[in-house]
Amino acid sequence: MADLHPAARELLESDALAHLVTLNPDGSPQMSAVWVGLEGDEIVSGHMMRRQKVRNVERDPRVTLSIEGAGFNELGLREYLVVHGTARVQQGGAAELLQRLARVYLGPDVVFPPPGVEGPGYVFRITPERLGGVGPWASHA
Amino acid sequence: MADLHPAARELLESDALAHLVTLNPDGSPQMSAVWVGLEGDEIVSGHMMRRQKVRNVERDPRVTLSIEGAGFNELGLREYLVVHGTARVQQGGAAELLQRLARVYLGPDVVFPPPGVEGPGYVFRITPERLGGVGPWASHA
Repeated sequence: MADLHPAARELLESDALAHLVTLNPDGSPQMSAVWVGLEGDEIVSGHMMRRQKVRNVERDPRVTLSIEGAGFNELGLREYLVVHGTARVQQGGAAELLQRLARVYLGPDVVFPPPGVEGPGYVFRITPERLGGVGPWASHA
Repeated sequence: MADLHPAARELLESDALAHLVTLNPDGSPQMSAVWVGLEGDEIVSGHMMRRQKVRNVERDPRVTLSIEGAGFNELGLREYLVVHGTARVQQGGAAELLQRLARVYLGPDVVFPPPGVEGPGYVFRITPERLGGVGPWASHA
């Protein structure tokens, strides 16, 4: 497991979107932008429906995500964090997690998921294995 | 080839970073944030060095990229564009392309690549095959 640099933790707990990659059965990348947060040293995301990315992680736990930071490096390039990790799928708990993340991403008074979207859902629990990108968290920075 | 929705074209020509995924030899995702532009109906990016992603595309042309938009959908979720495409590697032309893109991403007077970074480099030419994400370009929007 990779140690999460304090600046990486801060970004993972911010309202910045995570561009999350899972692997389809044919090996091609599946990609979507998701809300993420931290629980201890795990990165978590919530998914109400059994879409392709849930089935992908059940079959192949390798995931990668990328998040834009607010800073810039010495060349003026925007910082971003890449996390290579291993995910497991937890059944249930998605609505509670999404409600917590909605307060970060949308605002303190938002009710989420919206009415009519119900069910236990799925939570991805991602163990970071390696960090990259541009910023103080990147090993070559 | 997928038709590029006018709003997708606008985003691909803006200063928004593209989170680009290529596939490593072991099938795991390789990911970095890159500058992109359009040349006709191809998405282009410039790479001065023969890094992993250049070798990856030469071996497996499947790439996916994700870009955040400025708008929000009816649930308050930020728009983003996902492009699934097929890339080919063009030898040379990277410095000229990066100079053009630097004017978009950094400012009109920027000189890029910085002094000391030289060589023909590599240009990715990506043919969009399918669009996704959240926004007017997504087929399920």
